[in-house]
Amino acid sequence: MKADAIISLDHGSGGLASQNLISGLFLKYLTSPQLRDLEDCAVLGEYAGRIAFSTDSYVVDPLFFPGGDIGALAVHGTINDLAMRGARPIALSLALIIEEGFPVTDLERIIASVGRCSEQAGVAVVTGDTKVVPRGKADGLFINTTGIGIASHRHDISGKKGLPGDAVILSGTLADHGITIMSRQAGIDIGGDIASDTQPLHRLVGAVLEGDAGLVHVLRDPTRGGLATSLCEIAWASGVSITIEEDRLPIRPAVNTACEMIGLDPLYLANEGKCIILCDQDGAEDILQLIRRLPEGRDAALIGWVGEGSSGRVSLTTRIGGSRLLEPLTGQPLPRIC
Amino acid sequence: MKADAIISLDHGSGGLASQNLISGLFLKYLTSPQLRDLEDCAVLGEYAGRIAFSTDSYVVDPLFFPGGDIGALAVHGTINDLAMRGARPIALSLALIIEEGFPVTDLERIIASVGRCSEQAGVAVVTGDTKVVPRGKADGLFINTTGIGIASHRHDISGKKGLPGDAVILSGTLADHGITIMSRQAGIDIGGDIASDTQPLHRLVGAVLEGDAGLVHVLRDPTRGGLATSLCEIAWASGVSITIEEDRLPIRPAVNTACEMIGLDPLYLANEGKCIILCDQDGAEDILQLIRRLPEGRDAALIGWVGEGSSGRVSLTTRIGGSRLLEPLTGQPLPRIC
Repeated sequence: MKADAIISLDHGSGGLASQNLISGLFLKYLTSPQLRDLEDCAVLGEYAGRIAFSTDSYVVDPLFFPGGDIGALAVHGTINDLAMRGARPIALSLALIIEEGFPVTDLERIIASVGRCSEQAGVAVVTGDTKVVPRGKADGLFINTTGIGIASHRHDISGKKGLPGDAVILSGTLADHGITIMSRQAGIDIGGDIASDTQPLHRLVGAVLEGDAGLVHVLRDPTRGGLATSLCEIAWASGVSITIEEDRLPIRPAVNTACEMIGLDPLYLANEGKCIILCDQDGAEDILQLIRRLPEGRDAALIGWVGEGSSGRVSLTTRIGGSRLLEPLTGQPLPRIC
Repeated sequence: MKADAIISLDHGSGGLASQNLISGLFLKYLTSPQLRDLEDCAVLGEYAGRIAFSTDSYVVDPLFFPGGDIGALAVHGTINDLAMRGARPIALSLALIIEEGFPVTDLERIIASVGRCSEQAGVAVVTGDTKVVPRGKADGLFINTTGIGIASHRHDISGKKGLPGDAVILSGTLADHGITIMSRQAGIDIGGDIASDTQPLHRLVGAVLEGDAGLVHVLRDPTRGGLATSLCEIAWASGVSITIEEDRLPIRPAVNTACEMIGLDPLYLANEGKCIILCDQDGAEDILQLIRRLPEGRDAALIGWVGEGSSGRVSLTTRIGGSRLLEPLTGQPLPRIC
C-alpha cells in the first residue's frame, strides 16, 4: 500500500501533508471561493435577517449505507436543523476527525458525497478543519457540520409554539433511516428497497413558509429518538397534549416488516429527511397538498392533532381504537444512528 | 460507582438521559437564553457587517494540562480564528463526542471551563450537540467549536495581504502551549512555570484595528505547525519573502531549556494565545506599544520584516549572523497538540 493510500498523523499536523490533503482532495469536491482561500476563517457577505446557527456531529456506524453515507447525513442534517427554525441555510462548516490508517479512497468517496449534497442543496461548505488521531483513538471518521442560516422576521417557529387545535403533519414515511442503520449494525439483511431517507428539507420548508406566515407554529425533524420523542419534546415545550392516530402513520410495508423482525418500534427510530409540522388546522389541508407535490413530501400525511392541557402528554390511538401513551426514548439506547 | 458517575450510551440517545445531561450539567455552566431554549438551532439577532465563520475540532491529549484544558482551548481557539480575519466574535457552538465510560466529574470540569472562558471572553455558547460512542471508539472526549463573527467592511485582513516592507510583530512568547503538551505526552516533568498560553485574542485584535484601518495587513495565530509554518503560509499566500531575527524572538528561558531537553524546535511548536501581525512599518511601533499595554500582549516583539520576491521564502537570521531557511512543518508529526 502506498503511503498516501491511507491517512497518517502527518495529514493532521497542520504542515505540508495537511495542505496537500486539502488542496489535492478536499478542494476537488468542495469548490466555494472561501474554502479555496485556505484561511482558518471564512468571511461571507452581509445578510439581512436574524442569524440562525446549528451544530451536529455525525458518528454513524457504518459510514456507508443504502441511501447515503456519513457525508450526506452531515450535510442534510445540519441544513435540516436550520430549516426547522424557518431559516434559509447559507453556509456550512465541515470538521473531520480521522483515525490514522483510514483509507484515502473512503475519505474521497465521503468528501465527494459532501460536495454533491452541498451542491444539490445550494449550501456551500465555506470553512473546515481536519484532525487525525492515532489508530484506536477514534473509529474511522467522525464529522461535524455547523451551519449558518438567515431567519426571516416574518416567522417565529419553535418547539414552544404549538397551540391546541393545531394539526400535526408528518412530511413522509417513518423510520427509513433508523431501520436501515439498525439492520446493518445487527448484520441482518432485511432485503427489499429499504434505504435511508437522508435528504434536505429546506426547500420544502421554504415552500410551506412562503404562504401565510402565521399558519406554521412548529417544525421539527424527528431524528434521534424518533417521532415519539420529538412529539414529547414539542408537547412539553408548548404545554399541550398531542394525539396521533396509528392508521394515519405513513410507514413503508418493508420497513414495518423489518421493524417486526428486529423487534424495534418505528415510532422511536431516527428519520433523516422528514419533518413534523404543527400548523393552524385551517391551513393544514393546503399545506398537505403543497408538500405532497414536492418529491421530498410525496408521502406526507396528517397524523394527529394538538389538544389542551395535560402538558407533555402524547398518545397514540391504535388501529383497534385503544390509546397508548408515548414516552420519550428511555432504556435501550440505539447508538451511532447518525 | 453510581450509574450517573460515568457517561453511558443513553446520554447520547437523544432521549431522556440526553435531556437530563443537558439540563443538569450543561445549562448549569452555559447560560445563554438561546441554549436554554433547547432547540436544535439557535436564532440570534440581526447584525450589520459581513459574517465570519470558523470551525475547529479539539482532540488534545491530555485533556487537562498546566494553564488550561480542552474546554479552554476550544473556546479560545475558535474565537482567535475569527479574530484573525478582523472579525468580532459573537457566538459559539459546542459539539461533544464522548466515549462511553467517560467520568462525569471530568466532563463537568471541562464544561465549567468552557462556561468560564466563554463568559470571560464575552462570547456565548448558543447551540450544541452531544454524541456518545461505545468504549474504545473514541479517546475520552473530542470537542468541536464553531464560531460566528462580524467583520467590518473597514478591514480586509487575510494571509494574502502581506506587502514588502511590512513589519512582522509577534504578540508574545513562543511555544508555551506546544512544549507544555509535548512534555506531558512524553511523560517528562520539565518543572518551572511552563504552562499553556491559551487565551482569547479578540480584544487585542480589536484594540489594534481601532486605529488606522489600513495599517494591519495580516493576522495569523501560529497554532499547529508553529511560527515557522504560519510564516511560510503567509509568505506563500502573499507572494513575498519574510525574514525574522533569532535574537528578537520572545521565548521564556524555561521553554527554551525544555525544548533543548526534549529536542524540539520552538519555531515549530503550537501557540494558543499568540498572533503574528504583519503591518505597515510606519505603524509598527505604535501597534507594538499598544499591544504591550494589554496583558495578553505584554511580551510582544517586532521579530522581522517582509521582503520582495522569492515568494514563500522564510528565513531566520541566527544570533551569530547566519541565515537558516525555514520550511513548513514536515516529517515528524506532533499529534494531538490541540
